[in-house]
Amino acid sequence: MMNSLNEIARFLTERDNFVILTHQYPDGDTLGSAFALCRALRKMGKRSRVIVNGVFSKKFQYLAAGMQEQDFNYQTVITVDIASVSLLGELKAEFENIVDVSIDHHAMNTSFAKMTYVDPKAAANTENIYKLIKILGVEIDREMANCIFTGLSTDTGCFKFTNVTPDTMRIAADLMELGCDSAEINRIMFDTKSMARIRMERAVLNTLTTHCGDKIAIINSTLAMEKETGAEDADMDGIAAIPRQIEGVVIGITIKEKGEKHYRVSVRTLSGYNAASICSKFGGGGHHAAGGCSIDGEFDEVKEKILAAAKEELFGK
Amino acid sequence: MMNSLNEIARFLTERDNFVILTHQYPDGDTLGSAFALCRALRKMGKRSRVIVNGVFSKKFQYLAAGMQEQDFNYQTVITVDIASVSLLGELKAEFENIVDVSIDHHAMNTSFAKMTYVDPKAAANTENIYKLIKILGVEIDREMANCIFTGLSTDTGCFKFTNVTPDTMRIAADLMELGCDSAEINRIMFDTKSMARIRMERAVLNTLTTHCGDKIAIINSTLAMEKETGAEDADMDGIAAIPRQIEGVVIGITIKEKGEKHYRVSVRTLSGYNAASICSKFGGGGHHAAGGCSIDGEFDEVKEKILAAAKEELFGK
Repeated sequence: MMNSLNEIARFLTERDNFVILTHQYPDGDTLGSAFALCRALRKMGKRSRVIVNGVFSKKFQYLAAGMQEQDFNYQTVITVDIASVSLLGELKAEFENIVDVSIDHHAMNTSFAKMTYVDPKAAANTENIYKLIKILGVEIDREMANCIFTGLSTDTGCFKFTNVTPDTMRIAADLMELGCDSAEINRIMFDTKSMARIRMERAVLNTLTTHCGDKIAIINSTLAMEKETGAEDADMDGIAAIPRQIEGVVIGITIKEKGEKHYRVSVRTLSGYNAASICSKFGGGGHHAAGGCSIDGEFDEVKEKILAAAKEELFGK
Repeated sequence: MMNSLNEIARFLTERDNFVILTHQYPDGDTLGSAFALCRALRKMGKRSRVIVNGVFSKKFQYLAAGMQEQDFNYQTVITVDIASVSLLGELKAEFENIVDVSIDHHAMNTSFAKMTYVDPKAAANTENIYKLIKILGVEIDREMANCIFTGLSTDTGCFKFTNVTPDTMRIAADLMELGCDSAEINRIMFDTKSMARIRMERAVLNTLTTHCGDKIAIINSTLAMEKETGAEDADMDGIAAIPRQIEGVVIGITIKEKGEKHYRVSVRTLSGYNAASICSKFGGGGHHAAGGCSIDGEFDEVKEKILAAAKEELFGK
């Protein structure tokens, strides 16, 4: 059952005491959606708070800047950028059966809430939140604009990916006119790397090998490297994109040691080569351009297996 | 003497046999401006060609896709994205005194042409070209849209920098609706690195040192590295941005060996620290956020000198 943003706006107007849930491992879009909506509801004179579902990364804390704690018994539950209750993680037990409103941009949204709005064409869920706040009649201030912009920018790789639409760009333009700190947000998100990340990039670049006339490139990381560089999960973000970025490479492979003789393999391809089909040979999956699988064994063996599968994809079977 | 885009449009409508000049070391904005305007003038039934002022990099050649050679004696000379005749490089002797129209976005444009339009608020000069083509009444096709988008995207670091305005975003939205290959252009410009560049990144990351509680970071490249990695000038683009991108670093320094005991130093800073003032101690200059200078001597000596100057800036004099 899909609802319109108008229906959801009417419902929110009638209710109070909101709790807004982000998905586990919260990113810029789920956090931006939650804090923008929370700020808008408060501007309407309602009580509202966000439950950050996991670590509230330091780089995102400006989203909550200046907000007071509000303590109340919640009456209305909203989820943002959450396609299914499994993404509620530790909040699942308490909330899975009582979500009132789900606002999302994933086509596979399982309609677990009483009311659901999904626009799969929205590059970021904050596009939906922007439209909802407009309907609610709340004036978007600079802080809300920063929240909305953060979703747009982080979910599109700074307006780089194929998901960007004219709508995305025009909403960003509106937000800039509302005083949002667009360039500073972009700098924090896309022009800043932790020292651990820099060390990890150096380490994985030292493992780079290329094959089949430089059409396939492979890098790998080890547990020892993680220890040595101090890299945590957040620092590994985007590492898997590196080998495919090399000019001429059409299949990029990243092999990450997860445990003894246990490896996680990420595959990225240019159009014309199917990452999911390479990964499916090892029980994995994914999309055309990006896939993943787990392979167990000695490292050299694992590398040989995934390379063989990549060659099959490259040359046809 | 500034002219309006309307005046320039009227002039172009009356003339024919156009030659459009790009600046030396042509980038995406000057090339995008030139080919968009050239295509528009041809659609008006006029003869027009672009002179690419230097190497026409392979990655930009789609800008000229499908265009026929046109041979004619030129009657009207246009420069795009050129602030002064010195940027004409090898074309200076032939053209410096006969430029009819200069369309530019640099505030320091020296008004060397008979007619000049400068909008320093335009993030890219293709914003001006977009507006001019609209006034000329030419329908923007997909190829023109690709040219205009290329300028927008390359001059803003994929819509990341502080120069982006709401106008930039809205023009990009319009171009996407006109069918431009925005995501593919962004991939080519921002998601592709040459193998030599990857090798060079690895090499310079191996030289990384940090100082003053990781607030200053220094990398360096040597002539031997350039030889070993095969890196050319184009591969070195953006290398100077690396040290400042590290989280916590406020002054990033790149020391590039140019010859025996001869070094080029690039400084990048976060706001609050003045790169130009660091570089001016060695006869260099620049802006608040980016500066450069040359220092001669043994490498260790050069590094010590620039580090001392950076420390002065960091701690105040």
